[in-house]
Amino acid sequence: MQPTRSFASDNNAGVDPEVLEAIARANQGHVVGYGEDVYTRSAEALFRKHFGEAVEVFFVFNGTAANCLSLKAVTDSYHAVVCAEAAHIYVDECGAPEKFLGSKLVPVPTENGKLTVEAVRSRYHGIGVQHHVQPRVISITQATEVGTVYQPEEVASLSRFAHDHGMFLHVDGARIANAAASLGAGLREVTGDLGVDVLSFGATKNGALGAEAVVFFRPELAANFKFYRKQGMQLASKMRFLAAQFEALLGSDRWLRNAQHSNRMAQLLKQGVSKIPQVKIVYEVEANAVFAQVPRHRIRQLQDRYFFYVWNEAESVVRWMCSWNTTEQDVEEFLEFIRRNL
Amino acid sequence: MQPTRSFASDNNAGVDPEVLEAIARANQGHVVGYGEDVYTRSAEALFRKHFGEAVEVFFVFNGTAANCLSLKAVTDSYHAVVCAEAAHIYVDECGAPEKFLGSKLVPVPTENGKLTVEAVRSRYHGIGVQHHVQPRVISITQATEVGTVYQPEEVASLSRFAHDHGMFLHVDGARIANAAASLGAGLREVTGDLGVDVLSFGATKNGALGAEAVVFFRPELAANFKFYRKQGMQLASKMRFLAAQFEALLGSDRWLRNAQHSNRMAQLLKQGVSKIPQVKIVYEVEANAVFAQVPRHRIRQLQDRYFFYVWNEAESVVRWMCSWNTTEQDVEEFLEFIRRNL
Amino acid sequence: MQPTRSFASDNNAGVDPEVLEAIARANQGHVVGYGEDVYTRSAEALFRKHFGEAVEVFFVFNGTAANCLSLKAVTDSYHAVVCAEAAHIYVDECGAPEKFLGSKLVPVPTENGKLTVEAVRSRYHGIGVQHHVQPRVISITQATEVGTVYQPEEVASLSRFAHDHGMFLHVDGARIANAAASLGAGLREVTGDLGVDVLSFGATKNGALGAEAVVFFRPELAANFKFYRKQGMQLASKMRFLAAQFEALLGSDRWLRNAQHSNRMAQLLKQGVSKIPQVKIVYEVEANAVFAQVPRHRIRQLQDRYFFYVWNEAESVVRWMCSWNTTEQDVEEFLEFIRRNL
Amino acid sequence: MQPTRSFASDNNAGVDPEVLEAIARANQGHVVGYGEDVYTRSAEALFRKHFGEAVEVFFVFNGTAANCLSLKAVTDSYHAVVCAEAAHIYVDECGAPEKFLGSKLVPVPTENGKLTVEAVRSRYHGIGVQHHVQPRVISITQATEVGTVYQPEEVASLSRFAHDHGMFLHVDGARIANAAASLGAGLREVTGDLGVDVLSFGATKNGALGAEAVVFFRPELAANFKFYRKQGMQLASKMRFLAAQFEALLGSDRWLRNAQHSNRMAQLLKQGVSKIPQVKIVYEVEANAVFAQVPRHRIRQLQDRYFFYVWNEAESVVRWMCSWNTTEQDVEEFLEFIRRNL
Repeated sequence: MQPTRSFASDNNAGVDPEVLEAIARANQGHVVGYGEDVYTRSAEALFRKHFGEAVEVFFVFNGTAANCLSLKAVTDSYHAVVCAEAAHIYVDECGAPEKFLGSKLVPVPTENGKLTVEAVRSRYHGIGVQHHVQPRVISITQATEVGTVYQPEEVASLSRFAHDHGMFLHVDGARIANAAASLGAGLREVTGDLGVDVLSFGATKNGALGAEAVVFFRPELAANFKFYRKQGMQLASKMRFLAAQFEALLGSDRWLRNAQHSNRMAQLLKQGVSKIPQVKIVYEVEANAVFAQVPRHRIRQLQDRYFFYVWNEAESVVRWMCSWNTTEQDVEEFLEFIRRNL
Repeated sequence: MQPTRSFASDNNAGVDPEVLEAIARANQGHVVGYGEDVYTRSAEALFRKHFGEAVEVFFVFNGTAANCLSLKAVTDSYHAVVCAEAAHIYVDECGAPEKFLGSKLVPVPTENGKLTVEAVRSRYHGIGVQHHVQPRVISITQATEVGTVYQPEEVASLSRFAHDHGMFLHVDGARIANAAASLGAGLREVTGDLGVDVLSFGATKNGALGAEAVVFFRPELAANFKFYRKQGMQLASKMRFLAAQFEALLGSDRWLRNAQHSNRMAQLLKQGVSKIPQVKIVYEVEANAVFAQVPRHRIRQLQDRYFFYVWNEAESVVRWMCSWNTTEQDVEEFLEFIRRNL
Repeated sequence: MQPTRSFASDNNAGVDPEVLEAIARANQGHVVGYGEDVYTRSAEALFRKHFGEAVEVFFVFNGTAANCLSLKAVTDSYHAVVCAEAAHIYVDECGAPEKFLGSKLVPVPTENGKLTVEAVRSRYHGIGVQHHVQPRVISITQATEVGTVYQPEEVASLSRFAHDHGMFLHVDGARIANAAASLGAGLREVTGDLGVDVLSFGATKNGALGAEAVVFFRPELAANFKFYRKQGMQLASKMRFLAAQFEALLGSDRWLRNAQHSNRMAQLLKQGVSKIPQVKIVYEVEANAVFAQVPRHRIRQLQDRYFFYVWNEAESVVRWMCSWNTTEQDVEEFLEFIRRNL
Repeated sequence: MQPTRSFASDNNAGVDPEVLEAIARANQGHVVGYGEDVYTRSAEALFRKHFGEAVEVFFVFNGTAANCLSLKAVTDSYHAVVCAEAAHIYVDECGAPEKFLGSKLVPVPTENGKLTVEAVRSRYHGIGVQHHVQPRVISITQATEVGTVYQPEEVASLSRFAHDHGMFLHVDGARIANAAASLGAGLREVTGDLGVDVLSFGATKNGALGAEAVVFFRPELAANFKFYRKQGMQLASKMRFLAAQFEALLGSDRWLRNAQHSNRMAQLLKQGVSKIPQVKIVYEVEANAVFAQVPRHRIRQLQDRYFFYVWNEAESVVRWMCSWNTTEQDVEEFLEFIRRNL
């Protein structure tokens, strides 16, 4: 029998009940579509409260879109986006950025999922040369795809490099709440205050039904964004129901509690796993993910009951994610199951 | 004071409570993302029940995407899509089809929103000539943008023309339920049985929170569709909550009752309006829309209380839409308001 | 037996011998590629001489590219290009603009191939509305596809409208030399001085082997153009041989003499045709084209010896083009042949 | 004073006089445009003679286009093209492939510019998984960007891997003549006979004015190519003058003699350089390029007289190319100059 909650992905968790309630509350009468409604206005105000009065925010359906549209706003087709080799935009979006932007993504190997100024610098060349794509954006993922978290000074140094070189800093924040919780800092402190130009704000993994936002810290970058969103097939007619999801998460400290909780579950899992000699933690556990090297011949058996993804076949590394509704008991049972099956 | 329910658009109505309940029911435990879950399987089965065992179906977020992705599946960039001049894909999607397909849409003037074989034939030329885009798809909207409904034989003759000339027939079915209700026929009878190749199935205007589907009647056309959907930024991680919406509408006769209701409200509105001498109905009322010519200098005054869209500025024609939750009382009050303000 | 020279198209004529000589002259030693050579510098200087010191010019291979790249420089994907229904960019480029720009071309019917301010104004709407493509460019063809020529005040009024409405004026100048010759004016007088923002300058039909140029009258529009050209697959490695072609034509009055000659041949043809009662001239002959309505059942017979294109099947209208090397004798023989075969 | 002929690039050399003569010979009377002429037919026949009766061939303006259009013919937007990290399509075309295909290029590091089956296999994963681009083409450059040449068995093993895995093998043959000359084999023997599916055939570096061809070894792949070429802005109106260039090179053994000559000059240069102790040859000299590590502080001085490109700044490696008209004396003088300036 499968467990109720797995460790496969934080998007396998359902919807936070408070989000569903907010959706139901927004379901009153007719309101004008496409974002010209009070629910959307209210949710936008919440973003300004969290991220600063100057931000411009737009709601979209999913993370692929938040990333592609963010990048479209700051690139032309001959530009290049420098990102980690393991970046979701590079690996997991079926070429959506290349298709939508017409641009090249330039991958850089990393040790722990984090870009460094040194690494970006190695891809900064051919400036002004017509044969070469022109580096225009540094895109980082926070928390990273391997569960690590950029320190504020790391982000700040990347934004400084970007701005010194006519580039922009984009953050794929599918798990930005987890990063903020991990750093014990506010959402603005880990983004705009560090020089981030545009953020893909992730709510879906934080407990939403399905909603993400594009946040511009320099409003002039948002000037034409509404057209990109529509042309990018991401304008919701019943926008109020995207807005309501943000209302539920950002209108209280719900976003933070959900993120703290999943991070704490990952720590619990890590502590348990650390005591199992056959398993080796391979990345720092700084958000809600645990990456572990496990005996290759046991993986299938573990997956049979607890489905999860193999991250690196060659190295026999697997990924275990904790979510906003993972319980301590879930972790305990999973640990017990691992112990018994290794 | 604004009324609770307007006649601006059927997407201004909220979510059918049965849809919200289905979403809540699907919110149990963890399930794998991206469509490999039991809720999605179940909703897909419902589509096969309604449309035939051979169909392939894919869920997406909105109508723009359903249309663009449908068309992408049956075109290459040098193809052309023939559509009505008033087609939503031509007028109202900010160039999304051109951007995503790289193709030309060829608009044809119509009298009542309906393409005819004769009109399509006038755009069928330059075949095999390298200088010209190659006609590949006929795209019709059912019910049309002006509230008319194609008769079955009209659709069948278009599909015959398409297939005789190496083309496909696509239906933008944002209001396909209204068309089926209007024709007193089943969903399959008004689509696949008439030779439709691919359908954008609209649920949002039928009472969903936000969900549309692409239905292929020839499975071979769907072979690569999952990649187009992902690359088109339309793959939902928490797919079960799209699926649940279809479950609510298609798992009972809810889709039909909602459509019948909004159609009936439009008839009621039409009957009332017909008795107002200053207002002239300009298109047959066959679905849930009433298009009327009203005295130009009164429009603003009407809009002040009942927001609605002017369809044709030059002709002083306005659009009034009825929705799944428009009430008889709403219609009566609106009629009374019109009468008093003309 | 086919005649040596036909009236099918001005691109059926070969290369002006002076162009071939210029190419041969440029074939000395090694020079750096991609436009950083003295031949290219010299040809660029000629463009500044003809069009004004402020222009920026870039050489490309053909007219499709000159048009698409011109438009790319002044549009974003959500923009629209308003053009005549008969415009080459709309009809004859296999959707290249839609593919390269991701944008919509908005066709406007015309009586004589010429856009008017009134016609453009009818397509100027939906400004700032996210659902609609945003009109950004007026694109006209000078001389037009039907052999008419915009008067200076007509161009000026279009540029004023454009600039008053945040738009640009593009000229497809595949036959701009013919237009200038027809108007008895200089190249700058018929373009930049009238407010044209960007020009596709055609040399191929004027006697070149194959070379076109994009001329920007507002240098800031050219800022990123070198990247568009390269990414658009239009950067020649042996650029000097494109440059040499412009040198031959623009370095003397050769461009003008060639244009004047082909225009004069068209007048000769028109005069002869006017005396043939079964043939009716349908557009003003203002450049190097004669459009005539001829008895339908005779067209094939005429084409058998003198290949030419039917312009409008329904109206039985054909197109006869004169070129830089059409001779008076060619015209006389063609007229004699028509007379004998009607 | 600059020397007449440099070692910067084989495209810095001019046009082979025999090519110019062929162009002049083709300049007789009017011929129909866009490739429906006898010159084009004749040149196409020459390709069939060299490459086999079944090939389909299309002429384009430059190498960027030959590559992008070749790839377009065998990909959909969600596909990936696996290529060497140093591949011209990856590095030197300003993102043209990404823009035109909407696809991802997947770079693989190589030791000597050559892809191996093992390297390609490392990028062959995620098959059928909707999140990932689908590997569809292996693209190799022959001769490679670093002057090495794939042995026939190396190409054959790559084509076997491709075909066993539902992929195609594309060859960027900007210098395919040099490769054939180096291998002492015919053009077909080094391409179609080894399982190559589509070839970018380079004539420009072989002495043409500017002409490349796309050669399909499986005619079914060419079915829609004429539309891609036109939509890709690469259809020449005066096609006969592209055709004439191929006539000159392929109608005799001129293509081979030019290639042999430039290869021989590279050998001469290599032999001379090998005796200069401060200079180290870094790649096998198998075609017409010599890559050498030279003392960093001397590079500028050398470039002042003999302009050439630095290939790898970090390693102080430079590239010297020999062309069809490089003379033994050029090589001797260059060697003498190097010796005197190190």
